[in-house]
Amino acid sequence: MKLVVTVMLKNGVLDPQGKAIGHALTGLGFEGVGEVRVGKRIELELNAADDATALAQGEEMARKLLANTVIESFKVELA
Amino acid sequence: MKLVVTVMLKNGVLDPQGKAIGHALTGLGFEGVGEVRVGKRIELELNAADDATALAQGEEMARKLLANTVIESFKVELA
Repeated sequence: MKLVVTVMLKNGVLDPQGKAIGHALTGLGFEGVGEVRVGKRIELELNAADDATALAQGEEMARKLLANTVIESFKVELA
Repeated sequence: MKLVVTVMLKNGVLDPQGKAIGHALTGLGFEGVGEVRVGKRIELELNAADDATALAQGEEMARKLLANTVIESFKVELA
């Protein structure tokens, strides 16, 4: 099955990459651009017994490797 | 309104970051990990007249700045 782990900076954590994109978009002439935040999307193929096991494994992967839970939050879904 | 632009490497384009994550997960003891691909998720606040305009603007932003359409594909959604 396929898991999707989305990792975003927590609210309140400064996102310079997002800020840079926001400025660049405004500079390119796009109007009405407000806050921009950038995160990661990790898609992974996983051989697991069932959906619940896959999701639990995904959570553990996020906590151990994919996300820095001090500053990032994550979401695990089946795709 | 809030737009979400997801940018992933196209199929067939080598993804070294994904490969590294896959190896690291296996090294950490996770079993059954197959292909891993990493992309970007860009969330942006946008002042637009309506949903269709917002989506059209998002597509243009992706084409002009957020994605390298030679090697990346993108998807624009309202959140």
